Amino acid sequence: MHPILTAAAMVILLAGGAAAEAGPSGDTQACLECHKHLHPGIVAEWHKSRHGGTTPASAVVKTVIERRVSSGDIPETLAGVSVGCAECHTMRSDAHPDAFDHNGYKVHTVVTPGDCAVCHAKEVEQYGGNLMAHAYGNLVENPVYRDLMDNINAVSVIEGDGMKMNPPSAETHADSCLFCHGTKVTVAGKRTVASDFGDVEVPVLSGWPNQGVGRINPDGTKGACSACHTRHQFSIAMARKPHTCAECHKGPDVPAYAVYQVSKHGGIYAAKQGDWDFEAVPWTVGKDLTGPTCATCHVSLLTGPEGEVLAERTHRMNDRLPHRIFGLIYSHPHPISADTTTIRNAAGLPLPTELTGEPAAAFLISKQEQGLRLAKMQKTCLGCHSSGWVTGHFNRLEESLKTTDAMTLAATNVLLSAWKKGLAKGLDKGDSPFNESIEKMWVEQWLFYANSTRFASAMAGADYGAFANGRWYLSKNLRDMFERVEAVPEAAP
Amino acid sequence: MHPILTAAAMVILLAGGAAAEAGPSGDTQACLECHKHLHPGIVAEWHKSRHGGTTPASAVVKTVIERRVSSGDIPETLAGVSVGCAECHTMRSDAHPDAFDHNGYKVHTVVTPGDCAVCHAKEVEQYGGNLMAHAYGNLVENPVYRDLMDNINAVSVIEGDGMKMNPPSAETHADSCLFCHGTKVTVAGKRTVASDFGDVEVPVLSGWPNQGVGRINPDGTKGACSACHTRHQFSIAMARKPHTCAECHKGPDVPAYAVYQVSKHGGIYAAKQGDWDFEAVPWTVGKDLTGPTCATCHVSLLTGPEGEVLAERTHRMNDRLPHRIFGLIYSHPHPISADTTTIRNAAGLPLPTELTGEPAAAFLISKQEQGLRLAKMQKTCLGCHSSGWVTGHFNRLEESLKTTDAMTLAATNVLLSAWKKGLAKGLDKGDSPFNESIEKMWVEQWLFYANSTRFASAMAGADYGAFANGRWYLSKNLRDMFERVEAVPEAAP
Amino acid sequence: MHPILTAAAMVILLAGGAAAEAGPSGDTQACLECHKHLHPGIVAEWHKSRHGGTTPASAVVKTVIERRVSSGDIPETLAGVSVGCAECHTMRSDAHPDAFDHNGYKVHTVVTPGDCAVCHAKEVEQYGGNLMAHAYGNLVENPVYRDLMDNINAVSVIEGDGMKMNPPSAETHADSCLFCHGTKVTVAGKRTVASDFGDVEVPVLSGWPNQGVGRINPDGTKGACSACHTRHQFSIAMARKPHTCAECHKGPDVPAYAVYQVSKHGGIYAAKQGDWDFEAVPWTVGKDLTGPTCATCHVSLLTGPEGEVLAERTHRMNDRLPHRIFGLIYSHPHPISADTTTIRNAAGLPLPTELTGEPAAAFLISKQEQGLRLAKMQKTCLGCHSSGWVTGHFNRLEESLKTTDAMTLAATNVLLSAWKKGLAKGLDKGDSPFNESIEKMWVEQWLFYANSTRFASAMAGADYGAFANGRWYLSKNLRDMFERVEAVPEAAP
Repeated sequence: MHPILTAAAMVILLAGGAAAEAGPSGDTQACLECHKHLHPGIVAEWHKSRHGGTTPASAVVKTVIERRVSSGDIPETLAGVSVGCAECHTMRSDAHPDAFDHNGYKVHTVVTPGDCAVCHAKEVEQYGGNLMAHAYGNLVENPVYRDLMDNINAVSVIEGDGMKMNPPSAETHADSCLFCHGTKVTVAGKRTVASDFGDVEVPVLSGWPNQGVGRINPDGTKGACSACHTRHQFSIAMARKPHTCAECHKGPDVPAYAVYQVSKHGGIYAAKQGDWDFEAVPWTVGKDLTGPTCATCHVSLLTGPEGEVLAERTHRMNDRLPHRIFGLIYSHPHPISADTTTIRNAAGLPLPTELTGEPAAAFLISKQEQGLRLAKMQKTCLGCHSSGWVTGHFNRLEESLKTTDAMTLAATNVLLSAWKKGLAKGLDKGDSPFNESIEKMWVEQWLFYANSTRFASAMAGADYGAFANGRWYLSKNLRDMFERVEAVPEAAP
Repeated sequence: MHPILTAAAMVILLAGGAAAEAGPSGDTQACLECHKHLHPGIVAEWHKSRHGGTTPASAVVKTVIERRVSSGDIPETLAGVSVGCAECHTMRSDAHPDAFDHNGYKVHTVVTPGDCAVCHAKEVEQYGGNLMAHAYGNLVENPVYRDLMDNINAVSVIEGDGMKMNPPSAETHADSCLFCHGTKVTVAGKRTVASDFGDVEVPVLSGWPNQGVGRINPDGTKGACSACHTRHQFSIAMARKPHTCAECHKGPDVPAYAVYQVSKHGGIYAAKQGDWDFEAVPWTVGKDLTGPTCATCHVSLLTGPEGEVLAERTHRMNDRLPHRIFGLIYSHPHPISADTTTIRNAAGLPLPTELTGEPAAAFLISKQEQGLRLAKMQKTCLGCHSSGWVTGHFNRLEESLKTTDAMTLAATNVLLSAWKKGLAKGLDKGDSPFNESIEKMWVEQWLFYANSTRFASAMAGADYGAFANGRWYLSKNLRDMFERVEAVPEAAP
Repeated sequence: MHPILTAAAMVILLAGGAAAEAGPSGDTQACLECHKHLHPGIVAEWHKSRHGGTTPASAVVKTVIERRVSSGDIPETLAGVSVGCAECHTMRSDAHPDAFDHNGYKVHTVVTPGDCAVCHAKEVEQYGGNLMAHAYGNLVENPVYRDLMDNINAVSVIEGDGMKMNPPSAETHADSCLFCHGTKVTVAGKRTVASDFGDVEVPVLSGWPNQGVGRINPDGTKGACSACHTRHQFSIAMARKPHTCAECHKGPDVPAYAVYQVSKHGGIYAAKQGDWDFEAVPWTVGKDLTGPTCATCHVSLLTGPEGEVLAERTHRMNDRLPHRIFGLIYSHPHPISADTTTIRNAAGLPLPTELTGEPAAAFLISKQEQGLRLAKMQKTCLGCHSSGWVTGHFNRLEESLKTTDAMTLAATNVLLSAWKKGLAKGLDKGDSPFNESIEKMWVEQWLFYANSTRFASAMAGADYGAFANGRWYLSKNLRDMFERVEAVPEAAP
């Protein structure tokens, strides 16, 4: 039989030898022999996982809607054994510059989407079209955002009357922005580690550890599936619970989880989730869950009680989202390409809008595409809400986008006046727009307060649209900026 | 038999035909036929609810202390069927201007306290005496608060050297303050919706969706029982869990839930609630719960293990509270009337205290009434605490009211000086006290920092009395105000 | 038999009379008779506790690694009865100035570590070496910290053009800093309480209630075991869950729990803790838990699946910590003595570093001791992580200590310039370094922002190292300080 296994062939294989196939491969058993002593927690977790208790052969024969693997060509060698240490950490070794010789095996530490794609090809492909997969480059290789990042992470020293900003180290970036965006993991050398089983030579990885969503892996792939499917249980339940998303989506710049917590949806989750089934595939509204988590609205395959599909599974997280509402100066239609470094606005900056808010339309999805994405989201909403409810909700969101963008524009106009008056040096003087006090106030206007207000509106967590980093701060911060600039006399011409 | 059913008659009815009565009415079955496809989540939730699985007839025959319905005159037509779609959404249609013709039924979207009162009359009556029921009018129809709200929600534009505030839209208000306070829901027209079952004509509701606690309903009633008794399970467990309260009581203006989370009570809840019975009526201390939630201290009917009543159920949330500690400039005895728009202080303003803190005593409850309310709260405390503990705790709260009010008075005096010096234009110049930077600092002094400190004291969550929006900020903000005003020279006379 | 019972003797005792020993003592039964009516919640909780359902005699015969009591000399009178009201509240009465005559018993309200040590001697001894046990004196008796505390809690009044700070009351301190640090509990007199069982004379305790970790008890002992082992279940599960720690470790000054919540560890806990066993002693990694809580890394006795010890139980919380990363101006090696009031830096101040960051090395643990503590922590990490992961993680923490200290030094240099320019009066003028605006900005630099960044790094909760009180604020606050001081002209010499 050809080493690539079709679903049909696998059925036969399964029928013929199911009993013999259960359990880990010999290679995995060899790993476990030592590693169950070295890292008992990892091994115990894996034993509790679906990977540890099932085989690709049994996964692939489920009905399409119940299936958790999407590849049609799972290698035969993998089909009949559980998905263990050796399967993930020795497979595709040739593609892994981080692979090292270890007791006769070629082992790589960093398991990547390239590895996961062997069984989960469709999800990895979708994820590649996700802004998150490009989170490293979209930050580091965009000169404007890179400048913002450097200004946040720099280490300042006072010298005489002046302040000097020293560039941040790789460790600092990895501990700050790149913790979530992802680091670039490379092999920096080798070192010898003493263990209970003797000395072991292992590679030194720079940028490690990291589980950022846009991690650049040694094999060239982007992302870390373990960001959400936490190793070594890789539990779908954990990816579906909102705490996982909170790891990167709770701060003032992107308060999705904080907003969720005070929304009715978050209240239902907190009160009722003990009765839900977070493992079921498909995920059936009303039966398995009676309120949404992040995954429900943005990722999961959802069905109604009679099996009708309310939403297809997607790992391109903006599939159901017409607008990008955070991280940038103004809200705007989602970018066409997940790689946003190629965007140029009319002013030539790598930004999806002008400094005054007009969209760089050529790089953004069309009104029609926005409509399609909105319809997908609304179909999910309609699982539990009437059309009047849904329409009213989204009308308010549209209004919030407009008003928060207007409040950002007002702050931008104050900033331009500050630059003109010489209170700060800005883009017109070739200086960073992020390094002076008034500029940092401007950043908070859009990055914290406009963002929070939009999330509050999108997810109905009103505190964040009123007092918790919402409209109170939007108007207070603008007034503070205004009075500060107003007090400065016009610069002499 | 008369269509109004007495408890006695119902016993007979129940005894005679219990078996036949189970299940939804024919009308509800007609609703379900289509709506289980249109909104499967709603329907599935309702099936899981007590409403879906019981009948008023069986509810009314429980012992008084176990009873969840309080009306003595439940109509006979409702008694023997579960409380389904038709029971809530077609009953009292004549009172509902939002009712519309729909497949032979007269249906209203907005179910109101007026509808719930058919079975839960006592709770609805109590709730009517609750400040929350009046949350819309108390905000919108009080010119001082209305001015604060408008200043928060306004959309500003920079025009030349000036800043202009455009009045906020209804959508913005609904997404901000009125999300929790409640909107005014009115019928704005009609529209046709396409559905799987053909076109349907439905009313367009302005101010919809909304579940704010003081919602003004089309039928003229105030409030939304679903704010806490979340549709469509209407679960008492959910109303008793603190996450529901958090939806409106977590922000810096009213951080009750945030304080609870870091209190010993909140810690007990988080660690032990898996062992508790949140459905039991009455709620028995020590047996059903071993620590309080918000509802325990403020709402629920509590008993000791031998059935002795520790606290009567109340839906007037300040029944056990002598002081109002948030939302206003100074703490003060609770208002006598839940409608606070009629209050006038000595200066003629619709505020429960003067600008300098003296109470508008004629509109506030007496010392004696305060004592009665305190005694009710303390009886609850004594369920798990000794009298020395309870006395010591409330002594500190008294002190915190005094000191936070003193810190607010100091800030007010700085503000008056700022107005005198011309740093800002205030009430004396006929200008808003909320629109300039120094004024917004003053607002934060009482609305955020004094409030947080008081909540921390009342609920023993010390972080919020120290560093988390507590005394640190109270003293820092006052100092910042002081130095800012001190730097301004006296205005020429 | 001698009244002090050895483990061996207790085995005999147990073997001979186990059946007769179950249940509360006669004294405890006498207490329960009334108190089950007076405080039903306390009594019900105690019945659910291990104290209520077991005896020291049965506890002491467990294998060493499973044992929850550590004293070798538990009095014989206690051995055979459950640990009830009388056992804790009447034992050691002679040592208790707060003991009072009550129905023929000498009862003390405040149960102290001295009382708990009768059975848990080793834990109490360890805890005595814990900084937390000294949290009262380390704050109140250190003139620098005392000044900070007074500046936070003072009640200010505006008099003419000046601001006067009135010293805070004992109640205010008890409600603010001392809530967590602990109050000094003393007997202030007597009072008569009316109860259902007649009038009772009880002591008036000042500083009560309080469960602060460094409480000074009437018997002279320090601390409150109930701070974490919440009365009256004294549940090890609750002490092991992170919510308990959150009571004092969530605010901006020490955001450990907030950081944990957005860490992968916190996410695992939130999603998976329903499957864990929080009662097991020892606590077995992979079996009883699949992710750490606060206690896992800092306190608990941890074993691997074959019984190998990964970490010994300790109640000296910095046993596994080389660095103190919060509460002080700069990070530094942990103090040698838990009583830090004796520390003097080169400038003569009671601080573990100079104002410019150099450590007061003679009072701090050596590099070697730091290495030992780090090794203990890393052994815990290795339970679930590879050595490359662990090394990379701690390298970043080292870098974060350096960079946050550098950002604090820069702020200190700005402050020194402010003092020189006369913008504020500082230590050089004999004035408090905590009472003026620029000084309070400086405090936030280290107490909030440097601290948060370090916690984020130590516990991998990146939000708090980036935007949530992390590097964004570190750099913004420094810039704000700099621009404010830069604008002030040099003072004339």
